[in-house]
Amino acid sequence: MTPAEARAYFREHNVTTTAGFAPGNVQANLIAVDKQHAFDFLLFAQRNPKPCPVIGVLEPGQVSSHLMEGGDIRTDIPAYRIYRHGELAEETTDATEYWTKDMVGFLIGCSFTFERALLDAHVPVAHIAQGRNVPMYRTNLQCEPAGVLAGPMVVSMRPIPAGQVADAVRITSRYPAVHGAPVHVGDPLLIGIEDLGQPDFGDAIDIPAGAVPVFWACGVTPQSIVMHSRPDLAICHSPGKMLITDVHDAEYQVP
Amino acid sequence: MTPAEARAYFREHNVTTTAGFAPGNVQANLIAVDKQHAFDFLLFAQRNPKPCPVIGVLEPGQVSSHLMEGGDIRTDIPAYRIYRHGELAEETTDATEYWTKDMVGFLIGCSFTFERALLDAHVPVAHIAQGRNVPMYRTNLQCEPAGVLAGPMVVSMRPIPAGQVADAVRITSRYPAVHGAPVHVGDPLLIGIEDLGQPDFGDAIDIPAGAVPVFWACGVTPQSIVMHSRPDLAICHSPGKMLITDVHDAEYQVP
Repeated sequence: MTPAEARAYFREHNVTTTAGFAPGNVQANLIAVDKQHAFDFLLFAQRNPKPCPVIGVLEPGQVSSHLMEGGDIRTDIPAYRIYRHGELAEETTDATEYWTKDMVGFLIGCSFTFERALLDAHVPVAHIAQGRNVPMYRTNLQCEPAGVLAGPMVVSMRPIPAGQVADAVRITSRYPAVHGAPVHVGDPLLIGIEDLGQPDFGDAIDIPAGAVPVFWACGVTPQSIVMHSRPDLAICHSPGKMLITDVHDAEYQVP
Repeated sequence: MTPAEARAYFREHNVTTTAGFAPGNVQANLIAVDKQHAFDFLLFAQRNPKPCPVIGVLEPGQVSSHLMEGGDIRTDIPAYRIYRHGELAEETTDATEYWTKDMVGFLIGCSFTFERALLDAHVPVAHIAQGRNVPMYRTNLQCEPAGVLAGPMVVSMRPIPAGQVADAVRITSRYPAVHGAPVHVGDPLLIGIEDLGQPDFGDAIDIPAGAVPVFWACGVTPQSIVMHSRPDLAICHSPGKMLITDVHDAEYQVP
């Protein structure tokens, strides 16, 4: 399926994870809030580009963009979560009735892009090999606040063979639009993680012998921080069910 | 002088260009507007990171930040330009009386950073060698609009020896926070520039034999585009008279 075909497929209320759809194309997280909160959110993203790499913004009244030619942000994601006052109120396959004229939609890069680059370079990605979701943890690393938004960073962890840690750093640093280089390599306690076997989100995974835990800023961070500020209404994608964009992974590679 | 000493020096109403001050430290452009325009501006920057690389934002009521420890954005730039309804109203060494409680200040990266990297790699920078300001031109390249903000990109031009064009691309692409890789290499007509000898801003320079004109997105773009939207009040630095920050050039280098 092309990205446009995948979006049309999900528009027809088919609900699956988007992992593996349109390989080589960027998949995006969605978080949409009323325009009164939009400046604070965009400023938070500007100050915290690693956990919150914005790849596109839909202004009030705009439901598509050049990232999703012919698409509709309100219908083309397999499933949406509707939050009211920071609490999950509903899950739906069509967000049209919730999308007010003042909603601003933020599309945020996703680590699927750099995982593909790691695999291409023969750096193993353990959670994929083990058929699980990536483990994610709340840390004691504080994001730089913006307006009413503040709180700790959430990270994802991938155990990397010690001899390939440098490769993993080098490769992911070339993708600043999808979380970029790791924020921490090694001892989890130093960033406030007491037990790697008990992630706050995602699945626990087996850590292969000789591997070092490597931590990347995670796109769950902005969602968790916005919820903390309890806006009247927020519309997010459902975890693992992303927007498939027309943009190729390579377009976000630097230098 | 350290960056803090330079800021204190300019706070005492000393007015000179900041070129050559605190070498190795990032210098920043300032543009400050009322908070009602701040989302549009930040969105414009997010969509046009090459001409408008935001390195810091001062929220309403904030006049300093970790980029300028102990400094004051209203006094520490050698000279300010006050614009009313898009027209230059005044030039001053102290913007305190104009800085209302609702002003949001945007600090924007400057090409001084990558010019230093070019010189370090023995790529000649002609306007520096000739003791002139860099020539800048309006183009037919349209920025991606955001809210009320739209218009053409302004570029700076540096003639690069043909055998070093690849080096110039490679080196500047490592500094996405200060305009990054060129937007155009070669024929000026293709981007709507009819005469390199008649720049719209800055100085005309001599183009050495065997050099190719190379064009980078320029920080004059956001200023020119904001003025076009005629906000009640905008406060900018005076050209060539920048904010000297505490940040080292190397911190903005990727990967």
